[in-house]
Amino acid sequence: MNEDALITIIEKDKSLSYAGCGLPYYISGMVSEPRALMTTHDGDIRDQEFFGKIKDIEVLNRTRALAIDRKNKSIVIEDLKLGKRSEINYDKLILATGSKAKMPRIKGIDKKGVYSLHRVEDAEGLRRELRGNKAKDVVIIGGGLLGAVTAEALSRRGSRVNIVDSCDQILGFLDREMAYLVQNHFEERGVRVLLNSKVEAIRGREHVEWVKVKNYLFRADLIILSTGVKPEVSLARKADLELGSTGAIKINKYLQTSDPDIYAIGDCVENKSLITGKPVYTPLGSVATRHGRFAGINVTGGSEEFPGVLNSMIIKVFDYNVASVGLNEKEAFREGFFPVSVIVPGPDKDHYLPTAKLIYIKLVADRNSRKILGAQVIGRGDVSKRIDVIATAISAGMGVNDISKLDLAYAPPYSSAMDIIITAANVLHSKIEGNYVGISPLKLKEKIAAKEDIILLDVRSHYEYDRISIPGSIHILLNTLRGRLHQLPKNLEIIICCRSGINSYEALRILKANGFPNVQVLDGGILTFFGEIIETY
Amino acid sequence: MNEDALITIIEKDKSLSYAGCGLPYYISGMVSEPRALMTTHDGDIRDQEFFGKIKDIEVLNRTRALAIDRKNKSIVIEDLKLGKRSEINYDKLILATGSKAKMPRIKGIDKKGVYSLHRVEDAEGLRRELRGNKAKDVVIIGGGLLGAVTAEALSRRGSRVNIVDSCDQILGFLDREMAYLVQNHFEERGVRVLLNSKVEAIRGREHVEWVKVKNYLFRADLIILSTGVKPEVSLARKADLELGSTGAIKINKYLQTSDPDIYAIGDCVENKSLITGKPVYTPLGSVATRHGRFAGINVTGGSEEFPGVLNSMIIKVFDYNVASVGLNEKEAFREGFFPVSVIVPGPDKDHYLPTAKLIYIKLVADRNSRKILGAQVIGRGDVSKRIDVIATAISAGMGVNDISKLDLAYAPPYSSAMDIIITAANVLHSKIEGNYVGISPLKLKEKIAAKEDIILLDVRSHYEYDRISIPGSIHILLNTLRGRLHQLPKNLEIIICCRSGINSYEALRILKANGFPNVQVLDGGILTFFGEIIETY
Repeated sequence: MNEDALITIIEKDKSLSYAGCGLPYYISGMVSEPRALMTTHDGDIRDQEFFGKIKDIEVLNRTRALAIDRKNKSIVIEDLKLGKRSEINYDKLILATGSKAKMPRIKGIDKKGVYSLHRVEDAEGLRRELRGNKAKDVVIIGGGLLGAVTAEALSRRGSRVNIVDSCDQILGFLDREMAYLVQNHFEERGVRVLLNSKVEAIRGREHVEWVKVKNYLFRADLIILSTGVKPEVSLARKADLELGSTGAIKINKYLQTSDPDIYAIGDCVENKSLITGKPVYTPLGSVATRHGRFAGINVTGGSEEFPGVLNSMIIKVFDYNVASVGLNEKEAFREGFFPVSVIVPGPDKDHYLPTAKLIYIKLVADRNSRKILGAQVIGRGDVSKRIDVIATAISAGMGVNDISKLDLAYAPPYSSAMDIIITAANVLHSKIEGNYVGISPLKLKEKIAAKEDIILLDVRSHYEYDRISIPGSIHILLNTLRGRLHQLPKNLEIIICCRSGINSYEALRILKANGFPNVQVLDGGILTFFGEIIETY
Repeated sequence: MNEDALITIIEKDKSLSYAGCGLPYYISGMVSEPRALMTTHDGDIRDQEFFGKIKDIEVLNRTRALAIDRKNKSIVIEDLKLGKRSEINYDKLILATGSKAKMPRIKGIDKKGVYSLHRVEDAEGLRRELRGNKAKDVVIIGGGLLGAVTAEALSRRGSRVNIVDSCDQILGFLDREMAYLVQNHFEERGVRVLLNSKVEAIRGREHVEWVKVKNYLFRADLIILSTGVKPEVSLARKADLELGSTGAIKINKYLQTSDPDIYAIGDCVENKSLITGKPVYTPLGSVATRHGRFAGINVTGGSEEFPGVLNSMIIKVFDYNVASVGLNEKEAFREGFFPVSVIVPGPDKDHYLPTAKLIYIKLVADRNSRKILGAQVIGRGDVSKRIDVIATAISAGMGVNDISKLDLAYAPPYSSAMDIIITAANVLHSKIEGNYVGISPLKLKEKIAAKEDIILLDVRSHYEYDRISIPGSIHILLNTLRGRLHQLPKNLEIIICCRSGINSYEALRILKANGFPNVQVLDGGILTFFGEIIETY
């Protein structure tokens, strides 16, 4: 923005400007060297020389910023190669100090073979451990975003991987029935998931050999810590810059800290949720990159506003694409909304093509305002498109009905004539209007466990019913239902299930019209209840 | 919506409710039988029995509606099997008469072997022609959406395919420089494209053997007519229902015709453009499907509004995904906007992954309002996501800057940390602000043809420059540019080119800051100028 500005980057590590989100792909071997993570897509390596000759920006790497003197507008820095301290002045300062891995308190955590995966150096250490297939057994502590991706990377390199998580599900950004589907896929691919479990101790001589979980000992040649990150705010705190309720640096919409000449961006700051308006900590590369652009504009005299975030995220674990945006149902309750949700499994493209793949979409809206609050989309098919369309819709404040009216581009290799997100919005609309009455698979499981007196009516084909069905369910083919209504009692709660939900809905409409007072559809059908049993169309 | 309603479907053909957009995939053999196009994604065949037993809807197939008696609210119908006429009453009537293929006036068009591809019966006839590889040479008249898809289908079955189009480009919904890239891909895959050409005559004994184009004779064992469709409005016209300026049936936002008890939906109606507010004819399956749902709600007492369309479309031709939404630049000019556009080629996911593929995005906005007017996205990578996000953004009335602020979900296998649509919006923003000055590849080609006195400055690597470059361009490496500014004249127009545009922009900023008054970047770089020369990252 300003060719005359004197710009200096102070970086404590050797490397700068690398794609940290690509590190798991370096671990898996899909990316062969860290240098690839530092190039532009036109092939330039973003090193000191690049910044110097092309951008006219001075890079001081292996240099640590020790303190900010806000009165004199200067920073004390230390050259880590020479151990020399000096001072550097600023008119505008941008803090981009990032985050650091949370370290759980576990006995033996300082043994060799315990890694977090945060910097290039971590990844290089890990690659060394993996050489010669020494890491036969790996324990990953924490089944969040990074833990899940690293589990796949290490499993692909031939390790036996166990994920240990203290919660009752992995991937806390998902609702439980959606996380369950991903867990199924992990287990299908040989990754064991231990829930409600803590690593109580790490054992071994110098190097890790065993971990203790619930009084069992598991072999572990390698341990990955992925229990989350926290903002690196020590420099900001020392300079008395205001921190927010999340513990990260507080910024205004122009990305300024409590000192208007100091901006802060990336993993060290807290953002505003576009849905609740509240501060949230979202240490994500996509957010940081947008921060960077706006801060660059603003320190050179601009006034771009950064509106906030939706907590949009996506990961790939084996054949599953797993994505989420906005609030999940748990969070929506907690934030005081009246959430209503549906789960719709369906093909990602026209089902008659051999390339069609199953995806599950859970759409959450507020019953009062009918605005979309969030979505979770997972499965083998194209998840990424659906999550980004919904992210855009939420940004625009769209309601359920607005999604139904979207003019999305259709051809058989890309979607159904009515895309699954439109179908999901239609079902949600019907649910709010009372035409569709549904029960979540989690609630049905609770009812079955409590031995409630319900009728479970399965309307699938003979073939499907014989293959797998919910124990105790009765079977009536949908096309014979109108003639067999007298066989169903009107005084009991009836829960209808089919493969995905569409035929149950037909059955619901028939029963409702014929005076059955208490009928519900199993949301997401047998596919969601059991996890994936049939993969293609 | 109403279990008590008596619902009748009148259909002149045998089959109903099939996925017409899937017919090219039946031609190519990817779908093995038309029955697959009539199933729901849970496996039910949508035949007469399905509608009868499950939906309680009577289907009169092989029955033609001859006339509507609006006064008495009845329809004269003819049973085509028995040749018997009768009358049927209605309270509410929905016209879904569809469209028919336009028939160009060509001598010999009635010969055997000339097909349009509109109904199941057309596709079955075509499949018979293809048996035993008799159709060695195929001529496709019209290089629009259907022509392009059919060209691929027939090429995949082993035919030599020629597309003949009377315009100066194929795929009229694209701007010319984008259509050129698709045409390149066709030719790479062995499909010949003849532009500015008309089939003047079809020759042969009973069956087609030759076509005459510009005084040349081409072998043709099979001819496909794909010069577009027109609405089937004869029933509506006879009933004095109002037709619109496009020739299709006029409807209001509730999908009612000029007779409030008669609704019309699908390919026989005209829609409202959400961008211009004007009537447009958009015979697309995605639009028809949404019409269908809303009409069903409205004839049973609801009042859902159908807001209009964006002309969103997407097709797959060989390895290329080709999509468009809203207005292209030509149309935007014609509609009185002040369009400003950019072309950004880039990877569809993080470029360091071996799965990354090139896509080109052209984003068009109005210079005054800064609102997005349309986009064209093409290439081997994930195009579909980008077009649907932009469709959603246009529906919400978003401006260029709103796209820059979208919180899209990021991980390396799905996008760059800053997705290419955000990059495109950023470039467009810079262009509107005057920080980026660009020239389209079409305009540069005109300047070169007119032998204008310009400096073409190529800032790519030696390797890239040696491989292919624009004749007459001078070569200065970007990282040496600051030291070699004295070699460039300040009195001439300088046009900078690089691979995609990012390095040209760096060069532009350097030259501008150093007092060069007349500098521009080649929009979309060498990749767009020459068509695709490097496919992976």
